[in-house]
Amino acid sequence: MSSATTTTTNDSTFSFESYMHQKRNSVNQALDRMVSLKEPQVIHESMRYTLLAEGKRVLPIVCIAACELVGGDESTAMPAACAAEMIHAMSLIHDDLPCMDNDDLRRGKATNHKVFGESIAILAGDALLALAFEHIATIGVLPCKTVRIVGELAKAIGSEGVVAGQVMDILLTGVPGVVLEQLEYIHLHKTALLLEASAVMGAILGGGSDEEVEYLRTFARSTGLLFQVMDDILDVTKSSEQLGKTAGKDLMVGKTTYPKLIGLDKSREFAEKLNREAKEPLSHFDTEKAAPLVSLVNYILNRQH
Amino acid sequence: MSSATTTTTNDSTFSFESYMHQKRNSVNQALDRMVSLKEPQVIHESMRYTLLAEGKRVLPIVCIAACELVGGDESTAMPAACAAEMIHAMSLIHDDLPCMDNDDLRRGKATNHKVFGESIAILAGDALLALAFEHIATIGVLPCKTVRIVGELAKAIGSEGVVAGQVMDILLTGVPGVVLEQLEYIHLHKTALLLEASAVMGAILGGGSDEEVEYLRTFARSTGLLFQVMDDILDVTKSSEQLGKTAGKDLMVGKTTYPKLIGLDKSREFAEKLNREAKEPLSHFDTEKAAPLVSLVNYILNRQH
Repeated sequence: MSSATTTTTNDSTFSFESYMHQKRNSVNQALDRMVSLKEPQVIHESMRYTLLAEGKRVLPIVCIAACELVGGDESTAMPAACAAEMIHAMSLIHDDLPCMDNDDLRRGKATNHKVFGESIAILAGDALLALAFEHIATIGVLPCKTVRIVGELAKAIGSEGVVAGQVMDILLTGVPGVVLEQLEYIHLHKTALLLEASAVMGAILGGGSDEEVEYLRTFARSTGLLFQVMDDILDVTKSSEQLGKTAGKDLMVGKTTYPKLIGLDKSREFAEKLNREAKEPLSHFDTEKAAPLVSLVNYILNRQH
Repeated sequence: MSSATTTTTNDSTFSFESYMHQKRNSVNQALDRMVSLKEPQVIHESMRYTLLAEGKRVLPIVCIAACELVGGDESTAMPAACAAEMIHAMSLIHDDLPCMDNDDLRRGKATNHKVFGESIAILAGDALLALAFEHIATIGVLPCKTVRIVGELAKAIGSEGVVAGQVMDILLTGVPGVVLEQLEYIHLHKTALLLEASAVMGAILGGGSDEEVEYLRTFARSTGLLFQVMDDILDVTKSSEQLGKTAGKDLMVGKTTYPKLIGLDKSREFAEKLNREAKEPLSHFDTEKAAPLVSLVNYILNRQH
């Protein structure tokens, strides 16, 4: 397996770290521009607090990398890439609320509702959701592409997407006898579908063929599941300090995890299987051009926090 | 002023009551189809509970009537009409939450979070917001029209639209010395902008010229403000039984209203001025075709609950 940070292709060495660093900077600058401090200030402060907080930016980077892989460029994908990050921020804000996961801390910082109060936090989530679509409507591409993207993103978020995952997570927390199929449903819906939409939006915007769009859909679905399986593994193998959040919290609050259901060894095997499944559809593209996404999925398998 | 229920034009009599009845039925049937009882059932039950509850359906009817006024038909406008009603339902669900207006009853029925719990209620709102855009993406019109509609709706909802209105409402509740300008800001953002988006979406879908779209925008903005001024008036002049909700509640919880700021007589004068301002842009259309919207704005001025 190639290293997570450097992929050697036929005639060049791709540096994943510098790629991630550059993309993360571009995304952060775009997010900062897209949500400026307008009136009413408090709601924009609340939106920016979570949206601009330190983060991996996996969703927007996958969107941009998918766009570039099929021949598009960063700037074309940027509004959709940032839209995906806005949805992600919205789901974090709403998930952290007292009536949901009741989290006071996220990445070592007070959660949105602890700083701005519950009502502003809920409204900041609502506004980020709306803003995501507002920015997608401004993409200067063929309108038929924009319409496809709106459909993809909306479906990924709604009552058969992220919301469905969160509902099942709530319903099954603390319930004994949760089975593998239910756990996969939660991870697929809460995480993988939004990553899938990010990749698909990037591929559509970059002018990818239907076949290329579907390859990237498959890649992203497996990568999203892998991300969650690794989250489950790290939750039981790392300290709170290493993770920047409370270790062992999933088990403590009665959430089912892969290690709990199938043990640590089998969870690691499953993660490696998902890593291979994520990379398979990328083999249909030029090796050098696919390096960013191959490196990303390796990085997710090997991440330590 | 013509009656709220019957408008006599040159060669026919338009029955507003039968128009409203027919449109309300079509909208209710479409909403029922658009949010069916899929898995996870509880979230779809929660979404349907508020979305299909008895309501005036002013937003979707304005959307359809605007579409028809510029030469389009009901079916073309229906996805956008229902999308507007989904956003309305979302804002009702989130506004009623304990951390917001903390309402246990709406139109005599328990509010969404009292039946389904806060977490499901918040998620039902999120899902309705996403579903609104999903349905708009399915409209079979020129994609460039769909993209304009997505932009109009998203802007009306977000941090400079409905959310901005709700934020100011929260910030100014219980604060002494609220001035007319602030009250108008709340009403404009919480109510009028979504009515404006509904009319504009209908006009775009119906193939209206830019001039026609702007006439309908002006109509809807004044109509939306009128709706809220009448709400303020009814809050102090009617009993809870007549309204189907707690009369005098606005004042009780420290919200500023038009009668409180300028008195009941001046509030009624202002309502009549808004009624005239709403009808003025309609005078640029064929009288007979404009009858539904003229009747609607008269109905809003004369409504008793």
